Amino acid sequence: MPIRLDQRDPGFDAAFAALLTTKREVSEDVDRIAAEIIDAVKQQGDRAVIDCTTRFDRFDLTPATLRISEAEIDAAVAACSPELLAALETARARIEAYHLRLKPADSWSVDALGVESGWRWSAIEAVGLYVPGGTASYPSSVLMNAVPAKVAGVGRLVMVAPTPRGATNPLVLAAARLAGIDEVYRIGGAQAVAALAYGTQTIAPVAKIVGPGNAYVAAAKRRVFGQVGIDMIAGPSEVLVLADRSANPDWIAADLLAQAEHDESAQSILVTNDAALAAAVEKAVAAQLATLPRAAIAGRSWADYGAILLVESLEGAVPLVDRLAPEHLEIMTAEPERLSGMIRNAGAIFLGGHTPEAIGDYVGGPNHVLPTARSARFSSGLGVADFMKRTSLLKCSPESLRALAPAATQLAEAEGLQAHGRSVTIRLNL
Amino acid sequence: MPIRLDQRDPGFDAAFAALLTTKREVSEDVDRIAAEIIDAVKQQGDRAVIDCTTRFDRFDLTPATLRISEAEIDAAVAACSPELLAALETARARIEAYHLRLKPADSWSVDALGVESGWRWSAIEAVGLYVPGGTASYPSSVLMNAVPAKVAGVGRLVMVAPTPRGATNPLVLAAARLAGIDEVYRIGGAQAVAALAYGTQTIAPVAKIVGPGNAYVAAAKRRVFGQVGIDMIAGPSEVLVLADRSANPDWIAADLLAQAEHDESAQSILVTNDAALAAAVEKAVAAQLATLPRAAIAGRSWADYGAILLVESLEGAVPLVDRLAPEHLEIMTAEPERLSGMIRNAGAIFLGGHTPEAIGDYVGGPNHVLPTARSARFSSGLGVADFMKRTSLLKCSPESLRALAPAATQLAEAEGLQAHGRSVTIRLNL
Repeated sequence: MPIRLDQRDPGFDAAFAALLTTKREVSEDVDRIAAEIIDAVKQQGDRAVIDCTTRFDRFDLTPATLRISEAEIDAAVAACSPELLAALETARARIEAYHLRLKPADSWSVDALGVESGWRWSAIEAVGLYVPGGTASYPSSVLMNAVPAKVAGVGRLVMVAPTPRGATNPLVLAAARLAGIDEVYRIGGAQAVAALAYGTQTIAPVAKIVGPGNAYVAAAKRRVFGQVGIDMIAGPSEVLVLADRSANPDWIAADLLAQAEHDESAQSILVTNDAALAAAVEKAVAAQLATLPRAAIAGRSWADYGAILLVESLEGAVPLVDRLAPEHLEIMTAEPERLSGMIRNAGAIFLGGHTPEAIGDYVGGPNHVLPTARSARFSSGLGVADFMKRTSLLKCSPESLRALAPAATQLAEAEGLQAHGRSVTIRLNL
Repeated sequence: MPIRLDQRDPGFDAAFAALLTTKREVSEDVDRIAAEIIDAVKQQGDRAVIDCTTRFDRFDLTPATLRISEAEIDAAVAACSPELLAALETARARIEAYHLRLKPADSWSVDALGVESGWRWSAIEAVGLYVPGGTASYPSSVLMNAVPAKVAGVGRLVMVAPTPRGATNPLVLAAARLAGIDEVYRIGGAQAVAALAYGTQTIAPVAKIVGPGNAYVAAAKRRVFGQVGIDMIAGPSEVLVLADRSANPDWIAADLLAQAEHDESAQSILVTNDAALAAAVEKAVAAQLATLPRAAIAGRSWADYGAILLVESLEGAVPLVDRLAPEHLEIMTAEPERLSGMIRNAGAIFLGGHTPEAIGDYVGGPNHVLPTARSARFSSGLGVADFMKRTSLLKCSPESLRALAPAATQLAEAEGLQAHGRSVTIRLNL
């Protein structure tokens, strides 16, 4: 059964604090193994990648078959139904349209002293995208990671995806083609992360690695960070639905279960000021679970981590929502914008009864790679700037240097950095 | 003596590759100690922070004296010369003006289907700023970290700075006051990082920690990441000067030494197509070293990590610069903008002979917290967005949900996520 908390109960604060610190991730200690695999790939390149693939993915590769050929991708695209390809293209085009708006602008200006300054954004040269194998191999995630990279202007976008026993996922390959991925390799695990970070005889290294993966992949990403950039380390997914009595309990139940079916560690929370709605949602969840193909997973998640919070008012619940800092926040009230404007911490907000979170997973346009585990307090969903970097620019004239020199040399002197001061004053005597 | 490489030599490529992988940091294994300190602070709060301060900083605190009072800061400000305070204010105002331009904009729009989407940036609620003690305690770094946070709108900005044997740095406190820092604590090391991340009886926790520190601080930041956000882990500083025969060798030498005086691990590199300039710079470095207060440090850095690269043409050197991805790049040619436009990887570019890097350290306006150790290939200097996060927003109407439903449900079905599909279709039947 999910946790039930009532704000009027004396134990509410302690119970809410406990909810905040619930650990939903099993932290497997795989760091030593990941380190050994990375070392092997650094030393031996392709050979180590191929050995690991035999060992973990149970099939044999050669340097010539590491890469999935264009002909294989053609065949995968041909194996997908035209309707499904059209749906993928709808998703791609909508993600692209939204992310084009996110592209950051350059700046250049001259101030009153004549100092010119600004910045220039440029794309990261080469990016690797990790796509998990098995049941977590989602074509929608390929689009969500690859489309922003292409909008950013990344020149070389490399995908790695394990294919256990050699089985590829045609729709994942179709998504890669559609998104404009340049190279696809049938490898995974820490060995794929190491190959992307350090390069092998066959695979040129990249400068940044993004995308979700299992514990080995996460450990490997942490280890190669510095050598390359990495994105966030994603935890289990979560949704918080903020609803008043105007909301439809069946719709809320459907949304809570859509989150819960991802993973036994997923978390679905309802926050409402209406006890009757809370009861109706709980009943609807039980009813809908009965006919759900992934009922075992969703039922486990709901029982272990589901929560229903009854609050005195939704406005009063805003600080609670901010402390939970949910990855996904649905606001199902008559005036969702009003509450939305009061929320500080959420990865993505879905406004009103007709915006189920699942629309955002596929075709809404915003990215579905979002901060989990309360990290929306300090971080954002994946965006175009994650595939770019900003170089600051500064230019002084002889006159503007002269104007800035006294302040600069005084501060340098105060910090005990005389060579700093000299690099300014040496230019003033001409 | 610095390394000398000539692009026409047959061994150039191998020597350049070796230069790229030079390790300049001693990686001290302090992780275990940092972990113990963090655990103690999590368990005991103030008590552990006070014990660590006695042990490492050699002075005694109580919960009541952890915080540096406003009266103490008043006294520190009064102890600074008016000229120095005016220089600090010049720096603050220029940093603020530049960073106001960096403030990211919100977005909201409606597409052809009637789907409303956009995003909203909000400031991180509370941020901790680590300021090192001793010789690396720089008031300019206080401004460079605090001003962007205030521009972002951070409501609570907390500074921690160790004060070995109780000695404070008045100019650092004056910079804190000027930048609008809300609370200052006289603590440092892993214990200060833990106090910021988990809170103590006296110090409320923050959501993100920024600022440079020693190996213990870096290890602690890595360990608390996830609980809070952190900024980059900074390595030793570096400059690359790209110059042709039009450049003044004495100015270049002054700039190379300004970098070298930071730290024995700092790196100064000259890339030029003019052998005579290369020789003149080397001579000028030796001459200027003789009269430099920090000659021992700068001389060590120049001898161990300094490099002079003679190239056939500066345009041809652009790929080499991109591979080195310097933190600071000075372009001292007649037309610096032309070469600047060709460079992809650099943290900051200083254009022309009258823009010494030291101007950017203090009063240029752009941030001096920049990516080191080749990480400009994939990351940017500190900016306003580092103190904010972006929440994506999406709103469908009944009609626009109906329009998007087929693509979303097909993709959900293809991914085996039937509850996702149901959360869409359940809304279509009313």
